[in-house]
Amino acid sequence: MRKNVLRELLNEGKPTLSTRMITTAPQIIELIGLSGAFDFIELCGEYTAWTLPDLETFARTIELFPHMTSMMKVEKGLRLFVAQRALGAGIQNILFADCDTAEEARECVRYVRPLTPEDGGLNGCGMYRNIGYLLESGSEAWVQAMRDVVVEVMIESAKAMENLDEILSVKGIDMVHFGPCDYSLTAGKAGQKGSPEVKRKQREMIEKALRKGVRPRVIINSCEAAKEYIDMGVRDFCIGNDLNSIYSFCKSNGEKMRELMANNLT
Amino acid sequence: MRKNVLRELLNEGKPTLSTRMITTAPQIIELIGLSGAFDFIELCGEYTAWTLPDLETFARTIELFPHMTSMMKVEKGLRLFVAQRALGAGIQNILFADCDTAEEARECVRYVRPLTPEDGGLNGCGMYRNIGYLLESGSEAWVQAMRDVVVEVMIESAKAMENLDEILSVKGIDMVHFGPCDYSLTAGKAGQKGSPEVKRKQREMIEKALRKGVRPRVIINSCEAAKEYIDMGVRDFCIGNDLNSIYSFCKSNGEKMRELMANNLT
Amino acid sequence: MRKNVLRELLNEGKPTLSTRMITTAPQIIELIGLSGAFDFIELCGEYTAWTLPDLETFARTIELFPHMTSMMKVEKGLRLFVAQRALGAGIQNILFADCDTAEEARECVRYVRPLTPEDGGLNGCGMYRNIGYLLESGSEAWVQAMRDVVVEVMIESAKAMENLDEILSVKGIDMVHFGPCDYSLTAGKAGQKGSPEVKRKQREMIEKALRKGVRPRVIINSCEAAKEYIDMGVRDFCIGNDLNSIYSFCKSNGEKMRELMANNLT
Amino acid sequence: MRKNVLRELLNEGKPTLSTRMITTAPQIIELIGLSGAFDFIELCGEYTAWTLPDLETFARTIELFPHMTSMMKVEKGLRLFVAQRALGAGIQNILFADCDTAEEARECVRYVRPLTPEDGGLNGCGMYRNIGYLLESGSEAWVQAMRDVVVEVMIESAKAMENLDEILSVKGIDMVHFGPCDYSLTAGKAGQKGSPEVKRKQREMIEKALRKGVRPRVIINSCEAAKEYIDMGVRDFCIGNDLNSIYSFCKSNGEKMRELMANNLT
Amino acid sequence: MRKNVLRELLNEGKPTLSTRMITTAPQIIELIGLSGAFDFIELCGEYTAWTLPDLETFARTIELFPHMTSMMKVEKGLRLFVAQRALGAGIQNILFADCDTAEEARECVRYVRPLTPEDGGLNGCGMYRNIGYLLESGSEAWVQAMRDVVVEVMIESAKAMENLDEILSVKGIDMVHFGPCDYSLTAGKAGQKGSPEVKRKQREMIEKALRKGVRPRVIINSCEAAKEYIDMGVRDFCIGNDLNSIYSFCKSNGEKMRELMANNLT
Amino acid sequence: MRKNVLRELLNEGKPTLSTRMITTAPQIIELIGLSGAFDFIELCGEYTAWTLPDLETFARTIELFPHMTSMMKVEKGLRLFVAQRALGAGIQNILFADCDTAEEARECVRYVRPLTPEDGGLNGCGMYRNIGYLLESGSEAWVQAMRDVVVEVMIESAKAMENLDEILSVKGIDMVHFGPCDYSLTAGKAGQKGSPEVKRKQREMIEKALRKGVRPRVIINSCEAAKEYIDMGVRDFCIGNDLNSIYSFCKSNGEKMRELMANNLT
Repeated sequence: MRKNVLRELLNEGKPTLSTRMITTAPQIIELIGLSGAFDFIELCGEYTAWTLPDLETFARTIELFPHMTSMMKVEKGLRLFVAQRALGAGIQNILFADCDTAEEARECVRYVRPLTPEDGGLNGCGMYRNIGYLLESGSEAWVQAMRDVVVEVMIESAKAMENLDEILSVKGIDMVHFGPCDYSLTAGKAGQKGSPEVKRKQREMIEKALRKGVRPRVIINSCEAAKEYIDMGVRDFCIGNDLNSIYSFCKSNGEKMRELMANNLT
Repeated sequence: MRKNVLRELLNEGKPTLSTRMITTAPQIIELIGLSGAFDFIELCGEYTAWTLPDLETFARTIELFPHMTSMMKVEKGLRLFVAQRALGAGIQNILFADCDTAEEARECVRYVRPLTPEDGGLNGCGMYRNIGYLLESGSEAWVQAMRDVVVEVMIESAKAMENLDEILSVKGIDMVHFGPCDYSLTAGKAGQKGSPEVKRKQREMIEKALRKGVRPRVIINSCEAAKEYIDMGVRDFCIGNDLNSIYSFCKSNGEKMRELMANNLT
Repeated sequence: MRKNVLRELLNEGKPTLSTRMITTAPQIIELIGLSGAFDFIELCGEYTAWTLPDLETFARTIELFPHMTSMMKVEKGLRLFVAQRALGAGIQNILFADCDTAEEARECVRYVRPLTPEDGGLNGCGMYRNIGYLLESGSEAWVQAMRDVVVEVMIESAKAMENLDEILSVKGIDMVHFGPCDYSLTAGKAGQKGSPEVKRKQREMIEKALRKGVRPRVIINSCEAAKEYIDMGVRDFCIGNDLNSIYSFCKSNGEKMRELMANNLT
Repeated sequence: MRKNVLRELLNEGKPTLSTRMITTAPQIIELIGLSGAFDFIELCGEYTAWTLPDLETFARTIELFPHMTSMMKVEKGLRLFVAQRALGAGIQNILFADCDTAEEARECVRYVRPLTPEDGGLNGCGMYRNIGYLLESGSEAWVQAMRDVVVEVMIESAKAMENLDEILSVKGIDMVHFGPCDYSLTAGKAGQKGSPEVKRKQREMIEKALRKGVRPRVIINSCEAAKEYIDMGVRDFCIGNDLNSIYSFCKSNGEKMRELMANNLT
Repeated sequence: MRKNVLRELLNEGKPTLSTRMITTAPQIIELIGLSGAFDFIELCGEYTAWTLPDLETFARTIELFPHMTSMMKVEKGLRLFVAQRALGAGIQNILFADCDTAEEARECVRYVRPLTPEDGGLNGCGMYRNIGYLLESGSEAWVQAMRDVVVEVMIESAKAMENLDEILSVKGIDMVHFGPCDYSLTAGKAGQKGSPEVKRKQREMIEKALRKGVRPRVIINSCEAAKEYIDMGVRDFCIGNDLNSIYSFCKSNGEKMRELMANNLT
Repeated sequence: MRKNVLRELLNEGKPTLSTRMITTAPQIIELIGLSGAFDFIELCGEYTAWTLPDLETFARTIELFPHMTSMMKVEKGLRLFVAQRALGAGIQNILFADCDTAEEARECVRYVRPLTPEDGGLNGCGMYRNIGYLLESGSEAWVQAMRDVVVEVMIESAKAMENLDEILSVKGIDMVHFGPCDYSLTAGKAGQKGSPEVKRKQREMIEKALRKGVRPRVIINSCEAAKEYIDMGVRDFCIGNDLNSIYSFCKSNGEKMRELMANNLT
């Protein structure tokens, strides 16, 4: 079994830096890897138009970079299937979206943990890519690897905020992050994901998580945005995503060029 | 958000013409679009061998034709996942197969409606294709678009016919259509989907729907078949499908040519 | 509808020989077919990185060989959807993994049986590949074919062993096979799938199945391993899988060549 | 090696009926096969967006129908590569587009004939699908099969018409068909592919081919169009194509429905 | 036929802004389109791992944006095939790499021009996507569209610089751009693509092109770099590419975050 | 640039062990890698149904195993395009099939060598995967890597045997291997690839190559077959291929099981 860089960093209490991908283009994974700066890539699997072979390609490409690991975001509508397929493909950590109650959080943990009496999980042996197809099916190393899967849940509804203390107390929840967009919808504030009120909720979630010893991961779009969270004690940052880098470049440079051309080329 | 041609036609009380596809071939979508005659294409997603990237290609190709929109038929075994992925890809309307009770119908409506307190839906923000990946996540325009999704359910079992009044009363059910094949199975009449009795049931469904103000859509294979339904007050027709056009041409012309060749070329 | 070779063999009380595939490569199916020795191929769908088009390709390629049929292994996390899609694609028999109780077994049988009152199944008409897309939707021949689908379940947990008698009594369960790896996990013996104790459990399952008239299928990696099961009365064997053939060849011949080269080429 | 239905029909002097495909959708191949009326399908490979795996899928799907075989149209820009890959995939006959001179025609024949001194071809052994990957590489049966490949060339330029007698005399050219569209371009009559003059040229080509004993194949869109060619002695007809069937259905039925709806539903 | 935005801009003497893509991800095309700033996207087809279906997807996605058109870079090893396939798919303009002599340039022009006596081209009718598969094959509108294809060649060798005057005099060459990397290799200066000497060569090419009335397009990575070329009279700029946007973001922000984290989180 | 394991082994005069793949399945590459015994995998690209993305996947998967490298077999019909695309994808060595003359061999070497005056090659800069897309385009490290590409040619015709001395003298030809199947065809002995005469020719080629200092690579199917070649001085062996391993297993074990079952289960 491949070692899990994220689990090791958490075990050692070290900070982590991640980025997100909406596409599954392996060329993009390789360039993120070649930049040398990231501990893991989160595949925004809830939005990505993936296929099962893409999940294997995703994990395989990450494995070219020994300093990196992977995480997949799994949507509510198909948690058991997607989580087990992601792990089988070799993606090493799972983010569950839309986790509203402690009971749901417990179920999420069970989806990734091994089918042993002591773990109480639902994840069985298999001839999957992550064990070399044939080589370590059901081995003790595999059992340990499934115990080491980092489980993160998203807190992104008014209901989840009400249940936050209980969710944070669920054994096996390693990380959380706040979803301002869904939260604002559920709070009856559609279109206000960037409002001060929503931001306060995010801070509330971070503070509670830090107190409980669960690590809050914060999504930012620029380094400047990190400072205030560092001051709060946040150690886990996720910056940018593949499509945003391209759009931002095109938007800002495209408009500047248009202006330059309009002023100079007539 | 792209405007939804089908919702507009329903709002204006206008009739609609649609056709069906079993494959996802974009060339076929383009030729349907170039024919200029159809308001929307229903992807028979329950039978199609689709992948998530195919759903995006389907919606993208439809968008080349401003006069057209799209609908996806979603099977019982995976409703939440497929409906949200179809909408995320840019398919604008959903047909739920095998809807047997009012409770199921209500759940179907919830799958597409936004996650706001007033809508009570289960459809959250996302970095999906339909909002420009990054541009309108959770915006008010998106909330409105999800309210505008046309929801159609199939009435295709003895049980659904028993519950028809209640199903037709569910808020958010815009259209219905009758499934003679499954109906005949559930009524213990396998292989009799074209029988007078089954046809009577279809008429019964149409009449009830018209009375309730829910629009019945009728699947036909030739223009001639439309007349009797027009007389009943039906305004929504779906004619033909991609594979049937090819098979019919090959069967009728192939056999005629064979005869011609047998008679003249020996 | 295509005839189902496996159902015919079971009806006639004849023994069967199968092999397994983890990939979906049609070239491999063709070579298995050309070997002429196998009655069916089990697609280990629980582990395979398949897409819906792959399932059609799998069934289509099998159909080039009139002496063969197909089975798909379906995971717990998505049974209804996968089983119906496999059947629709033209895969003719289904193996359900992780079946722990008689109730689950009964549900599994319902997933494949037709939607008629007498069958009580959940499998409806469709414009699927297995009926020629347009030609035999809901016909009596299709109803019969769905009754003829061979249903096999895996017995692979301590709980399933406790419930074995009841599971074996479920009408419609034709075959069973034992999963030593998951069994050992659930019995608190991770990594001991080859232990004498686990083997005893497998023999216990085989004996009970034979007594109940349910056919136990045994997975082996070499002909030699068949003997002891033949002596027990087992008539259904599955030997090898695509990836194992390649790995075994590479491991054994690669190491021999390395030794030869080390001894002779310096 | 699979028997070549087209070669057998030509050897027996029997007429042939074919149809064309622009897509590679296997569902469409299967429905053409199920219609039972066609001897072969021509893949319009010059226009199709194919990949090498698609060529194998095309041939494989055809092989489900013992009464059918396949032909691929190969464009000028990549003749050697595409022709050999098509044959390797299992497509059994080749149509070369844009063949302007006897020298080109001779080269085309060489591309498909075996690499033996007596054949003078350029087609060598291989581990291709058509020989079972491993089973008949370079066998005498394969040599014979490559001699049996039916070679058709398109006559579709003013230059080709000038060289027609010589092209028709090239050993190994079995069939020809006329390309009115390219012919009209090269004759300085863009957009006049349906003009009487171009039609006269087609008849001229047909007459010469018949006199030389090379079989002219005629592309038609309706049975009625066949009569005049039957009277000339033509025995090989190709009717319709996949995309045209769909477009024609949508255009004619769509417009009729629109009219019906406009007149009745307001 | 779709109008060709680039041809119109050139006809009107207006400046153009383009960007490049190395992947074929349609999501990226859509975001470039949504930025609203670019007249066309150049697909770096020489480096892209494309398939023929990808070319259709590329063109189709561009067509969602009426203000944009497309160009494909075609490598030396397969010019005729790729150029005609790109045009057939709906990509409207062609860039030929590695064009060393006037004779090569003339051949390149012939590959895209129609097969009429007056044009002397090699591009014939077809059932391609760009004419609606069936609708405008060989029409006068198509002939005109093929005359309107913008042809650009790369000047990227010592030999091409020697032949520059003649290449620029070839009728049908609309644009040129300089390839500093290949040029430096052929000039015996591997690894010096950014040297002053290579830059001087680029300026020399630009000046000659401007004098001849052929439009030089300049590839830049930032707006600042445009100024000096604007002063020279250059009106056609290409800024950025998909993979570079992502890599630059990851490299610069990743390193900044690492430093921030190292300084603040220990 | 990644180091080239094969070039290093040749430089050090060490023996090499390789195997072949006809499919591109990454699972198979991973299991070959996990076997730990092979220095490189030859992709039989002449027969494989590959696409350009598959070549990147092939190279990427090989790179997971630092002890391995890759080679691609390139067919005569498309040498320049395929060789440069294979190298661009990250496949590090090239085997050219059907090389009949010294002139052809020289051309083959040029296809892979850099475009510098001293190398006289045809391989230019690019934004390919092998240089990190953006990072080492045209760098000195890339120039060196292209010089280090191992070039192997197949000797597989009567003509090539006549020209053998000259071919072996071409600078840049590192390895050769004999093609008995094509050789037997060209020698007028179709179907006799295993005859003593053809075997003598192979030995003749090996002896000449060894004398010239060009390394002959021998394809074998079992270790036993290696001995006679070791005695001749051969140091480079290629054993087995993916499809053969599966077919052999199925054929031998399938037949044994059938016999066992026939004898014991009636």
